Amino acid sequence: MVKVVAFDADDTLWHNEHLFLETRDRFTALLAGYHEKGWIEDRLYETELRNLGIFGYGIKGFALSMIETAIDLTETRVTGADVAEIIELAKGMLDAPVTLIDGAEETLKEVAGRYRAIIVTKGDLFDQETKLARSGLGNLVDTVEVVSDKSVNTYRRIMRSLAVSPEEFVMVGNSLRSDILPVIEIGGHAVFVSYETTWEHESVSDTALERLDFLRAESIADVPALLERFGEPRPRIPG
Amino acid sequence: MVKVVAFDADDTLWHNEHLFLETRDRFTALLAGYHEKGWIEDRLYETELRNLGIFGYGIKGFALSMIETAIDLTETRVTGADVAEIIELAKGMLDAPVTLIDGAEETLKEVAGRYRAIIVTKGDLFDQETKLARSGLGNLVDTVEVVSDKSVNTYRRIMRSLAVSPEEFVMVGNSLRSDILPVIEIGGHAVFVSYETTWEHESVSDTALERLDFLRAESIADVPALLERFGEPRPRIPG
Repeated sequence: MVKVVAFDADDTLWHNEHLFLETRDRFTALLAGYHEKGWIEDRLYETELRNLGIFGYGIKGFALSMIETAIDLTETRVTGADVAEIIELAKGMLDAPVTLIDGAEETLKEVAGRYRAIIVTKGDLFDQETKLARSGLGNLVDTVEVVSDKSVNTYRRIMRSLAVSPEEFVMVGNSLRSDILPVIEIGGHAVFVSYETTWEHESVSDTALERLDFLRAESIADVPALLERFGEPRPRIPG
Repeated sequence: MVKVVAFDADDTLWHNEHLFLETRDRFTALLAGYHEKGWIEDRLYETELRNLGIFGYGIKGFALSMIETAIDLTETRVTGADVAEIIELAKGMLDAPVTLIDGAEETLKEVAGRYRAIIVTKGDLFDQETKLARSGLGNLVDTVEVVSDKSVNTYRRIMRSLAVSPEEFVMVGNSLRSDILPVIEIGGHAVFVSYETTWEHESVSDTALERLDFLRAESIADVPALLERFGEPRPRIPG
């Protein structure tokens, strides 16, 4: 029944969010002379959300939002040296080694032996491609789709290009908002693999999760066994 | 013989390079108190090339390179207000109205009626997608491929995904380096449509162009007529 298994990449196959957390910490430390940590973090988050529609997701937009925040909350007194430090933080993120999540490679191999395995990752095209190259996982999958947003329409387009129906498609990922909800909404399957930390923007309220039909895995290594459950016919809910 | 006609977008279907030229002018004006225009431009170009491997192509990377250049050549004395102005310049570029090149829409319609028409554009995924949406051209084509670089391997991958051979593929664009050379190298066809200005990085030496088998169009409106020439058998070169 299932033909395609799609994996999210950031924080599903390799560690990513820790880079943002570490950079946020160094950013707040840089501006510690001006404001309290929590207040700086809140302003940065506001700037990121405000800029999302113009920068999209990714490290370069995040860097520009950090610089903008630093200028705003120092009333332009931030020094050139501090801004240079922010750019170096961003370059460090873009250049960081890719650390695979335990079990990711083995899981991908196992799944690719039984289904068509693909990667669907959101963010900056160039950054995602270089991470994929550094991860060594590219050869294990059939296709890699880098998308600017994981909306219902994005998943519809991907399914159409792969010529599969939603019932034949499983998405595996750590973001309820991006990997699970939109796929379930159009009748696909999803496996949620929890990650230690998730960006506030990607979180979803508990009420939105009620009545949603997806599976939860404690670890990516549990995914192959869970996939077999989608082969079973679903119980009909009398309407 | 020809099945797929692929169009470059920036400066082939819509004006783009003028945004960079205008922003470079405003950037050098901003730093006019520190250095001469030509010298600032050279330093900016150096920074862009140095950062290309870490930022890739696109406006956000260009913005970060402008900020880095401003810090370098003022020896960190650049003010927060000046850096804020650079971020505003970048936002203005990302938000600029998309102005179609004369004849682009009509040409795309005509070509799409006879061949499978696609767009292959290099740069930032999110920026290219929003430009495409603003251009209104998305519905005229079959597929849009946003790629991080237009290399021989990129074109091979695209042809494979469309299930066409190089002889069945024509690329139409204004960059010899990105649109013409790699396609010719793998046996495909190409139509070069000259544009008023081309970024230095995209230019190609005259010697590299000798003996290359591609067509030149004065305007995009000439493309449909030129495409018919690819239907004729090529003269065999003895040798």
